Amino acid sequence: MALQQVSCNKIFGGYQKVFSHPSKELACDMKFAIYLPPESETRKVPVLYWLSGLTCTEENFVIKAGAQRYAAEHNICIVCPDTSPRNVNLPGEDDSYDFGSGAGFYLNATQEPWKKHYNMYNYVTKELIALISENFPVVPGKQSICGHSMGGHGALICALKNPGLYSSVSAFAPISNPINAPWGQKAFQGYLGSAESGQWKEWDATELAAVYNGVPMELLIDQGTEDNFYKQKQLLPENLVAAAAKNDRLKCVLQMREGYDHSYFYIASFIGEHIGYHAKFLNA
Amino acid sequence: MALQQVSCNKIFGGYQKVFSHPSKELACDMKFAIYLPPESETRKVPVLYWLSGLTCTEENFVIKAGAQRYAAEHNICIVCPDTSPRNVNLPGEDDSYDFGSGAGFYLNATQEPWKKHYNMYNYVTKELIALISENFPVVPGKQSICGHSMGGHGALICALKNPGLYSSVSAFAPISNPINAPWGQKAFQGYLGSAESGQWKEWDATELAAVYNGVPMELLIDQGTEDNFYKQKQLLPENLVAAAAKNDRLKCVLQMREGYDHSYFYIASFIGEHIGYHAKFLNA
Repeated sequence: MALQQVSCNKIFGGYQKVFSHPSKELACDMKFAIYLPPESETRKVPVLYWLSGLTCTEENFVIKAGAQRYAAEHNICIVCPDTSPRNVNLPGEDDSYDFGSGAGFYLNATQEPWKKHYNMYNYVTKELIALISENFPVVPGKQSICGHSMGGHGALICALKNPGLYSSVSAFAPISNPINAPWGQKAFQGYLGSAESGQWKEWDATELAAVYNGVPMELLIDQGTEDNFYKQKQLLPENLVAAAAKNDRLKCVLQMREGYDHSYFYIASFIGEHIGYHAKFLNA
Repeated sequence: MALQQVSCNKIFGGYQKVFSHPSKELACDMKFAIYLPPESETRKVPVLYWLSGLTCTEENFVIKAGAQRYAAEHNICIVCPDTSPRNVNLPGEDDSYDFGSGAGFYLNATQEPWKKHYNMYNYVTKELIALISENFPVVPGKQSICGHSMGGHGALICALKNPGLYSSVSAFAPISNPINAPWGQKAFQGYLGSAESGQWKEWDATELAAVYNGVPMELLIDQGTEDNFYKQKQLLPENLVAAAAKNDRLKCVLQMREGYDHSYFYIASFIGEHIGYHAKFLNA
């Protein structure tokens, strides 16, 4: 797992870096961004994984969210993977903004031709965690996860499918019930086959919340009221809230933000609160 | 001067908007970004003008600097113009990153074919200030100016050529002595003609600092030590410091930042300090 540094910039006393590496799970070269806060020069720090949304690369969050200030304050490392395998030469992989490259949906595909490469779930929950632990000054096993939109869906399913793996989980405008939303249905059909295959429920946060039986966990969901995708019922956070309400082991907090939309301007406004939230668990 | 709203996003309780309008000084349509802080809904607020560097549009600072948080805290409006006229169909206008479109250098051109459109100095110091005062809830005459690289040069010359117009001025990694640096020499040659024309000194911050005889003024200069353009002597802040040191009416503070480069990661790290600095003057 040879890492190659792509870039390095000092910001808020720490370093924002980008690396590329050959991924075994995805069978292609991948890039990820990592913010190393000031204290990581002298001690190991916990990690917050950030999963981005449709069309993003590892770069968007790093440039637009303003998260480094808060990561520096709380001395948390932030790791942002790309949102899909890249340049794997599958037919149609670059044809849609909501399927294929830039739209890996953080699951493991079971359908041809996607299943060889589109295993973002394994990449995020296993390969990347191992890679980061082995190569950077982080506390092994001390990690939380957060994401936006498709990446909010990713954060939720990674946490719900792995009780105890993450110290905390939060999501901005997540696709909370993809099997009942157009984006999710298109992606799941392509990566997992028809709904009748029975596989869809394994990758749907609302369905997973209904059957979750791990250690007690809180799900922090953030949602802007002026988010067009929320209005178009792509996100459906209320469905997740309802499912979690019936599960004693889950507490789902839905924080509505009056007037905010789906953009990084919205994320920038509240990423400080979320990092502060995760820091309480990670620095405990 | 009809304004058309291009976009509007809520961020940190205020609104980040982009407008387009026909510019008289530049004889073309222009866009600018404006951040309206929360209190601007109920009272008039002061304005900080931000001038961006080579290759930028009105968008870069808005997306990358994280300034809205601080503008919201201090209730300051931030206005970011584009960096040059656009789509004016001059031969070669898009050929270089450091001349023509994206590289207006905040001066008034005197040479053909540029002089019809390339009058960013008049645009920034006159037309834009009038436009903002007439159309937004700002305190007339209460404005400061700040910028980066070419835009740092712009901020300095706008302030030095107009004593009292701006309440304060600061610059990140400014091109401080363009007549002695490759970027400046190329631009001044193209827009102003040969050095022998005698016009260059009118647009050079170091030369202007030497002859400044207006109200006492402080110049706050910020510079990263790992900035490649600083190392390549494109920026030359020490020349400005030396010129200001000989002028009783000027106080030039050069703040060096160990390990920081020329990027927006650097700007993001210190824009909060700069906005706090300007706020002291603007909210006094």
